[in-house]
Amino acid sequence: MIKTRFTQTFGIEHPIVQGGMQWVGRAELVAAVANAGALGFLTALTQPTPEALSKEIARCREMTDKPFGVNLTILPSINPPPYAEYRRAIIESGIQIVETAGYRPQEHLDDFKAHGIKVIHKCTAVRHAVSAQKMGVDAISIDGFECAGHPGEDDIPGLILIPAAADRIRIPMIASGGFGDGRGLVAALALGADGINMGTRFCATQEAPIHDAFKQAMVANDERATDLIFRSMRNTARVAKNAVSQKVIEMERAGASFDEVRDLVKGTRGREGLEKGDTDFGIWSAGMVQGLIHDVPSVKALIERIMGEAEAIIDDRLAGMRAP
Amino acid sequence: MIKTRFTQTFGIEHPIVQGGMQWVGRAELVAAVANAGALGFLTALTQPTPEALSKEIARCREMTDKPFGVNLTILPSINPPPYAEYRRAIIESGIQIVETAGYRPQEHLDDFKAHGIKVIHKCTAVRHAVSAQKMGVDAISIDGFECAGHPGEDDIPGLILIPAAADRIRIPMIASGGFGDGRGLVAALALGADGINMGTRFCATQEAPIHDAFKQAMVANDERATDLIFRSMRNTARVAKNAVSQKVIEMERAGASFDEVRDLVKGTRGREGLEKGDTDFGIWSAGMVQGLIHDVPSVKALIERIMGEAEAIIDDRLAGMRAP
Repeated sequence: MIKTRFTQTFGIEHPIVQGGMQWVGRAELVAAVANAGALGFLTALTQPTPEALSKEIARCREMTDKPFGVNLTILPSINPPPYAEYRRAIIESGIQIVETAGYRPQEHLDDFKAHGIKVIHKCTAVRHAVSAQKMGVDAISIDGFECAGHPGEDDIPGLILIPAAADRIRIPMIASGGFGDGRGLVAALALGADGINMGTRFCATQEAPIHDAFKQAMVANDERATDLIFRSMRNTARVAKNAVSQKVIEMERAGASFDEVRDLVKGTRGREGLEKGDTDFGIWSAGMVQGLIHDVPSVKALIERIMGEAEAIIDDRLAGMRAP
Repeated sequence: MIKTRFTQTFGIEHPIVQGGMQWVGRAELVAAVANAGALGFLTALTQPTPEALSKEIARCREMTDKPFGVNLTILPSINPPPYAEYRRAIIESGIQIVETAGYRPQEHLDDFKAHGIKVIHKCTAVRHAVSAQKMGVDAISIDGFECAGHPGEDDIPGLILIPAAADRIRIPMIASGGFGDGRGLVAALALGADGINMGTRFCATQEAPIHDAFKQAMVANDERATDLIFRSMRNTARVAKNAVSQKVIEMERAGASFDEVRDLVKGTRGREGLEKGDTDFGIWSAGMVQGLIHDVPSVKALIERIMGEAEAIIDDRLAGMRAP
């Protein structure tokens, strides 16, 4: 067992989080994570309506009696989803832990806090973490350059970002981006974090509700097989490198707008695409940690392995280096 | 004390290396590093001739009786420096440890090994580390995306690069790029390295033979204040962000060649520029770790602090998280 401020604050067994992953964060995965003693999050916007989210929360409760949370990601949009209604569904369902991400979480945070819900805010820069701490969140998830999805535009990896944030953050903090094994967990704890968040690593588990072709691609890919797209639009996303991601980058270099690449990036995006399993059709998120992924275990086996590795690194490897 | 395969193989007290830094790796700094129980390297090509290198080695020996090494960086060049003569000067001076970097080190490696010299090869990719291990080097220095100078073109940070390399490397390995404190040292050891290399952090010490203006700039700069230049030429270099680096990037975006930006990048490059102290004139190397640098200590105070931090993280922080 490894006990940290994070496990204590959130009442979980292991300092491992499966944070919000659009389309992937559904009851099958989240319940498996909870049952293994870690903290999983359903992704609110994966559900088409607030009512569907309420049903997904109920479905997850049938699969586990351990705590789990819901992620609410707030993106600037001309036609935004009904965030307040999703928030209401979360509160009324009795969820006790929420992960927020994205822009201007204050309104949502205030409502969650008023209902006694603990909030973890995920962000990619020290200055944003400091702002969230001031806003009153309960914990920070600090997300480095290595991550799948949106790493921000600063390109600061965890080795720098985690200690730089730790110097400014007083509340519990978990590290995100590039984590997949016990070595990374102990590194994060040494750098000043109280736990880790994993995304790509949880996608390559038996319970992740995506087609096996994506899992096998993550096993086969090395750490170099990701691309950063939408950099020219300052909305950078790290995705698995394939012919489509390369084409998007080529079009961006030639000055293309998002509207011009929109048809290309469709395909694997969305629940149907991820269930269909053509890894070369469209784009799909994957972090650099796929270079450290060599199998598709059950969530339980994965978490037990990570904890065993981490305990051995602390008890044997590091303690053994300490000469009198 | 922290003992690793690296400290044992190279006969040094602490698992900390000050690897080759062009213009900065001179006797004042290297002797201070050696006297503090770490492993410093003079940079061969900082000296104008092989004879001058022999004299610099002798000068360093007058300042310390502890082991130190020499870095030989091999760059592809139309008019290369007389590498074989520098190599001869290193061998004849009785140096016992060499750091190589750059292209095709085999010829140099064979000669060093034939003379009983231990060789550490620095590289930025797992495949290059595997090649160097096959060539017969004694240790690897694996250099991540965070580093000052040349990070390569793969953009893999240490959090991924170190464990990915550790999975393939059987000889001692040190981690480079992004290191500056005890948190980073323990993280590197947890990720599978046997020690760390620091560059930028050693530049911000009292003994580094560069103008104080650069040291103060590293203290003032945060982790975001670096730029990657020469990316378009596939010869990427991480430098301190200033008006010149921004101009170079702008010209590269417009399709400029190296010849066209050559005059811009002059200035602070070179020994005279670094002794002069205009941080806005020309470009100069700095790694992301400047975001974790808040003072300009002596080398001895720095190394004692890092070791004290690392020991406390292992003995107190991590051991304290282990619940029965």
